Amino acid sequence: MGPYKLEVQDRGYPKLADPKGKKIEHAVILKLITTNICGSDLHIYHGRFAAPSGMQLGHENTGEVVEVGSHVERIKVGDIVSVPFNVACGTCRNCKERHTDVCVNANEELGFCGAYGFNLGGWQGGQAEYMMVPWADFQLLKFPDKEQAIEKIRDLTLLSDILPTGYHGCVEARVGTGSTVYIAGAGPVGRCAAASAHLLGASCIIVGDHNKARRDLVKNAGYEVVDPSSATPIPDQIEKLLGNGSRWVDAAVDCVGLECHGYGPDGSGKNEEEAVLNTLMEVIKPAGAMGIPGVYTNLDPGAPNELNKKGFMALGFPAAWVKSPSFTAGQCPVMHYNRELMMAILWDRLPYLTRLLNTEVIPLERVVEAYQSFHDGSAKKYVIDPHNTTKLASSVGTGERVHARASA
Amino acid sequence: MGPYKLEVQDRGYPKLADPKGKKIEHAVILKLITTNICGSDLHIYHGRFAAPSGMQLGHENTGEVVEVGSHVERIKVGDIVSVPFNVACGTCRNCKERHTDVCVNANEELGFCGAYGFNLGGWQGGQAEYMMVPWADFQLLKFPDKEQAIEKIRDLTLLSDILPTGYHGCVEARVGTGSTVYIAGAGPVGRCAAASAHLLGASCIIVGDHNKARRDLVKNAGYEVVDPSSATPIPDQIEKLLGNGSRWVDAAVDCVGLECHGYGPDGSGKNEEEAVLNTLMEVIKPAGAMGIPGVYTNLDPGAPNELNKKGFMALGFPAAWVKSPSFTAGQCPVMHYNRELMMAILWDRLPYLTRLLNTEVIPLERVVEAYQSFHDGSAKKYVIDPHNTTKLASSVGTGERVHARASA
Amino acid sequence: MGPYKLEVQDRGYPKLADPKGKKIEHAVILKLITTNICGSDLHIYHGRFAAPSGMQLGHENTGEVVEVGSHVERIKVGDIVSVPFNVACGTCRNCKERHTDVCVNANEELGFCGAYGFNLGGWQGGQAEYMMVPWADFQLLKFPDKEQAIEKIRDLTLLSDILPTGYHGCVEARVGTGSTVYIAGAGPVGRCAAASAHLLGASCIIVGDHNKARRDLVKNAGYEVVDPSSATPIPDQIEKLLGNGSRWVDAAVDCVGLECHGYGPDGSGKNEEEAVLNTLMEVIKPAGAMGIPGVYTNLDPGAPNELNKKGFMALGFPAAWVKSPSFTAGQCPVMHYNRELMMAILWDRLPYLTRLLNTEVIPLERVVEAYQSFHDGSAKKYVIDPHNTTKLASSVGTGERVHARASA
Amino acid sequence: MGPYKLEVQDRGYPKLADPKGKKIEHAVILKLITTNICGSDLHIYHGRFAAPSGMQLGHENTGEVVEVGSHVERIKVGDIVSVPFNVACGTCRNCKERHTDVCVNANEELGFCGAYGFNLGGWQGGQAEYMMVPWADFQLLKFPDKEQAIEKIRDLTLLSDILPTGYHGCVEARVGTGSTVYIAGAGPVGRCAAASAHLLGASCIIVGDHNKARRDLVKNAGYEVVDPSSATPIPDQIEKLLGNGSRWVDAAVDCVGLECHGYGPDGSGKNEEEAVLNTLMEVIKPAGAMGIPGVYTNLDPGAPNELNKKGFMALGFPAAWVKSPSFTAGQCPVMHYNRELMMAILWDRLPYLTRLLNTEVIPLERVVEAYQSFHDGSAKKYVIDPHNTTKLASSVGTGERVHARASA
Repeated sequence: MGPYKLEVQDRGYPKLADPKGKKIEHAVILKLITTNICGSDLHIYHGRFAAPSGMQLGHENTGEVVEVGSHVERIKVGDIVSVPFNVACGTCRNCKERHTDVCVNANEELGFCGAYGFNLGGWQGGQAEYMMVPWADFQLLKFPDKEQAIEKIRDLTLLSDILPTGYHGCVEARVGTGSTVYIAGAGPVGRCAAASAHLLGASCIIVGDHNKARRDLVKNAGYEVVDPSSATPIPDQIEKLLGNGSRWVDAAVDCVGLECHGYGPDGSGKNEEEAVLNTLMEVIKPAGAMGIPGVYTNLDPGAPNELNKKGFMALGFPAAWVKSPSFTAGQCPVMHYNRELMMAILWDRLPYLTRLLNTEVIPLERVVEAYQSFHDGSAKKYVIDPHNTTKLASSVGTGERVHARASA
Repeated sequence: MGPYKLEVQDRGYPKLADPKGKKIEHAVILKLITTNICGSDLHIYHGRFAAPSGMQLGHENTGEVVEVGSHVERIKVGDIVSVPFNVACGTCRNCKERHTDVCVNANEELGFCGAYGFNLGGWQGGQAEYMMVPWADFQLLKFPDKEQAIEKIRDLTLLSDILPTGYHGCVEARVGTGSTVYIAGAGPVGRCAAASAHLLGASCIIVGDHNKARRDLVKNAGYEVVDPSSATPIPDQIEKLLGNGSRWVDAAVDCVGLECHGYGPDGSGKNEEEAVLNTLMEVIKPAGAMGIPGVYTNLDPGAPNELNKKGFMALGFPAAWVKSPSFTAGQCPVMHYNRELMMAILWDRLPYLTRLLNTEVIPLERVVEAYQSFHDGSAKKYVIDPHNTTKLASSVGTGERVHARASA
Repeated sequence: MGPYKLEVQDRGYPKLADPKGKKIEHAVILKLITTNICGSDLHIYHGRFAAPSGMQLGHENTGEVVEVGSHVERIKVGDIVSVPFNVACGTCRNCKERHTDVCVNANEELGFCGAYGFNLGGWQGGQAEYMMVPWADFQLLKFPDKEQAIEKIRDLTLLSDILPTGYHGCVEARVGTGSTVYIAGAGPVGRCAAASAHLLGASCIIVGDHNKARRDLVKNAGYEVVDPSSATPIPDQIEKLLGNGSRWVDAAVDCVGLECHGYGPDGSGKNEEEAVLNTLMEVIKPAGAMGIPGVYTNLDPGAPNELNKKGFMALGFPAAWVKSPSFTAGQCPVMHYNRELMMAILWDRLPYLTRLLNTEVIPLERVVEAYQSFHDGSAKKYVIDPHNTTKLASSVGTGERVHARASA
Repeated sequence: MGPYKLEVQDRGYPKLADPKGKKIEHAVILKLITTNICGSDLHIYHGRFAAPSGMQLGHENTGEVVEVGSHVERIKVGDIVSVPFNVACGTCRNCKERHTDVCVNANEELGFCGAYGFNLGGWQGGQAEYMMVPWADFQLLKFPDKEQAIEKIRDLTLLSDILPTGYHGCVEARVGTGSTVYIAGAGPVGRCAAASAHLLGASCIIVGDHNKARRDLVKNAGYEVVDPSSATPIPDQIEKLLGNGSRWVDAAVDCVGLECHGYGPDGSGKNEEEAVLNTLMEVIKPAGAMGIPGVYTNLDPGAPNELNKKGFMALGFPAAWVKSPSFTAGQCPVMHYNRELMMAILWDRLPYLTRLLNTEVIPLERVVEAYQSFHDGSAKKYVIDPHNTTKLASSVGTGERVHARASA
């Protein structure tokens, strides 16, 4: 509806049809159990991503199958499933090579990269009562048991995007046993990255964010924090935390993206698109690696300066070159990780996740309010339960309203 | 001194010399802080491995550097270090490729594979007051702080062998986030493998052992157990634990080796060399992988049958072939993992390790008694502190004496 | 029809139906361009594999699409395609993880592992005029241009099985730039493995076979050969060829399987199931790896001894253990490699392939004769062109009949 | 001596001493057989890299050992060896993890990354009669046979830097069987990258360079070329060559670095630091990877614009992000590849290398002239043979003087 304009509309029950209206029998209809609000939705909310006016938001979806197309063989009505946010066909070269983030059949305009609820292929999002999922046999992750799924829904609802995304950032940064890690951003993705680093066996896990409430969640979970708005530069803060004389971490993850703020008391008040990437290049050890799931785009109407508006960033790559660094950018191929992470959740290997994410389940009617609160820097992860399936949705807000600046 | 014969002798202070007596200036002398008793020592104790009569046992060593050769640049007197059990030169092709388990310069007789306290190159073990370590700059892992090291010594002492060995078994079995894992053996290496699987993010971790006291340690740590001596076959026990209709695990690790027992009420009373490997091939999923750090050798005077005596095993490989399995055998290249695992310990990422291992620190004079107890199936990990550096050594036994059969 | 009994029957045009007769709309019908005779077919021919009487053989198929089911989106009538010999659904866990060799939806009886023309799921083979291919969008590899495909058909026809299979054996044996490699078997798969090792940058490539005509093909292509029937043991022959004092190779590949012969003037006359695997373990370097695409099965009516008949092999694993070897067994997941190998062929990066394989294209009516000739140890690769699409099929044999023992 | 100033001075026989003059017994002295002129030397020559006045150039060295320090165990007088251009200790964490490009003990000032003949640790280069090599047991690659080494010296001399460097670029770009590859730059490193892509099994190998003589070498070797100075944009030229409708390559390698020129008839006449990297991001396929061995630095006195002078580059990263690309920058860890590449050369697996590189062997007295010719865009690779060991050095120039603009 335009930046900062959001409406709850009744769209009704969707059809088994692709964005152009063609019937697709490989699709299913889900009744949503949970559909989360994501930082990427905020980019749209802020007008930093173009999204077609009228596009239904919501790419973090979990639901119950209520209708299946005639070609669907594996998925059955009644299955409880997590929907990877990427739309992927399963038969193109990229899908076969597990790069479902860049499926070539899910976004005709761009030629690759489909997703629900964005300007990426025209697939309607799930912040609604029902949604359509194409190529269902390939795409859907089935939970083994409905009751167990509802019981662990606060964690399982993260499998559609942000837990795999944080995990992917860590994997691309080569986080493993004993790694020291710097994660830029303590929003929900950054917190999932911290949990993922923990799961991957990392040693010193450091998260940076301007927002104190978010830093506190991280600190209470037993990780370290740095404050980018401090007068002490990030590398100095990191050196102190590592305590071994090094100013470098083994791995670094950007969980912020283009809306990041600058550094120090002066810089931190405003958007400085290059701030996070240049810091990552500064703190990464020689032969270290960086994962960059934080979103960047050259189609950003709100880019803060002339160079950015032209689609360029002023990066300190020349100084970093001699350190032999690696960078991996882009969206997470959710299907590469979601089954494994589901297994870890079901066997209680991420006992710290629920509290770290600080999830609040809300009904669909509180979605506009929740966007505003999340935009204001809330340390919550908002999860919409449109049918009150989980019995966790509170129709009245908690009054929590963190009037901090937007995160990182 | 021969099977089941062990003596504590005074060998005095060692020289900076190789096994042939040639002066080596790249070596250092350590004053032992801890030196552990290992299942591999038991193989020697049982006469299943040849070891030169008079060889000083002990390949799991941690100590303080008290003398350095003139070529040593990086290691200093006073450093607290963990000694990988493999002896490795650092300049041969295998060492450069991180396969320090098969260094070609550390065992002239065999042509590769050196270790302390075995018949593998003639390097004296560390179950003593002092020991010599060659190629010290390459081999030794330095702990950052002596006080911290002593405080965490029960975990850090495992870095010389069994924690990396259990971890290596898991890595070779491709254990990762969400994996289901079967570990054969709940002895110290098996327990370290369970802890490693946990650290690596595994979901359902199942450990099999005949010894109830050892199984109880595993169960109390939150993992699953199966009993090979039960009339219910292992795959049936595993199927029940997985609870998803599968009889297969993603990954399997042999932490027992050639002294394993058979299965069921009948088989479990006697050594059946092939029992563990054939079970692993049975329970592994299609495209799954097996790690085999459990020790096998063709030079086994006590091999239980004619085929084994000739150096062969009757393996069910033909039935396994169609499952496309992978196997990786052999000793752990400790240096591939010990720094990373040290970091994880120092940052408290293995809080379950100490209790799972159930370590008892003893003085040198109790070593004969401890071998006997370990042979009898004790659920302890015995760690010798010859100088009482840790202040943890109890000169009197706990009376604990588990008269169970030897583990697995 | 029973061992050594083979008939050419007219089965007519197949239906879009699964082995149970259920209609499947994700399938297509191919008019065969080429369908090759494979060593695995010989196992059936020899009665060493059970195959349902009346099963149509042929799992190495290339054809033109003449009919598509209503669910097929990507594949069109007129497409020229290579059919991977594995049948794979594209939506099970194993397929998603690229292990199409163990698809769990293509073989109901075994629970995994489907293939055309075997007792593996009941899918009819392609040694016929037409064949049905299920899950066509996922499975089929499309060639960019028909004319170019026909022109390079002698190489492209190998993409359905033996070129990827030989390549997979090398990949699993970790063959790379500069590797020294021992390949057991100079039959078509062994020759494809030699070509693959070359493509992968291997240095010294050694192939062993009893059959001189096959060894000559290998030698003429610039690789080295050893003769297992010589009185000089294989390791001594290898040592001489390497010329660097080593008796070990970096990588070893078993391209023979259970019908292998023994060694030396005495052993080489008869089947000794363990001969190849035990040799591989002997010649592999410490920390080396072995690929085992050669077929083994516990369901072998012709197993040469009692142990083998029970499904066991007497393997020299205990002596190999200390070398820290890796083994990977099983069928090749063709889809993991076929697109890449097609690209290499289309850009002329395997100029040595055609001559090394020594392909003869024959009409369908010569198939019985060709089986006999291949069984007799012919150094040809026989390719059936049932419609004479390639214009290469000679209706009269060349008279070539190598009366050697069966290869390796 | 300053930009464009180069002198041949008599420095005499070096000492076994580190850059500060401290005796080091782990070093050896080499009598140079060959020492090559490299593009990186040109950066110094052009004043784009700081190098201490009086520093002896030359980091691509091959020689005969004439003196060994007392700690050296493995290397002997008379050995013919290749010297990796990185200086590396073999005992720091980075060296143990095979990242010898960022050894922390070889460059005290920067804290990591040592090399001969640069401002990287103070180690004297080899464009001389003799040179000193520290940590010789770890660093030196020994050739098996002197006579064979001299015979293949034109190829083997490339092992000290540019062949591994081009190969590393390809490996980091994940070039493998069937890959389509774009290589920026047809100078000696770019030509080695093309040869490496061939060795790695790439399909369509495309090299871009402004210099026609260099493009001709590439074309004659059977690879494709594009001309950045053409009015047709690079992606259009690539699309035409691929011939499959794609404008993207699987892998891209920057073999140019900061002295690259712009594009098109206008841009190509002048240095535009970002030109290559921005093109790589444009032509890389979704989920593709880029290797960046081309040199960048923030310490470039000749940086072409204000942003560059401050150490930043204006990179089109925001548009590339959605393609999920990977980048790996930095120097090649030569020891990771040189043994394998030596084996491939010794077994004649790179028969195209000599002609593609177009090497000219010259005596030491022609070095100033050769620098000028190389700066002028010569399509030769100049190799100095100071003692005329190879008998290949021509004391008179060929008169070849390609008056083209500097490459790429």
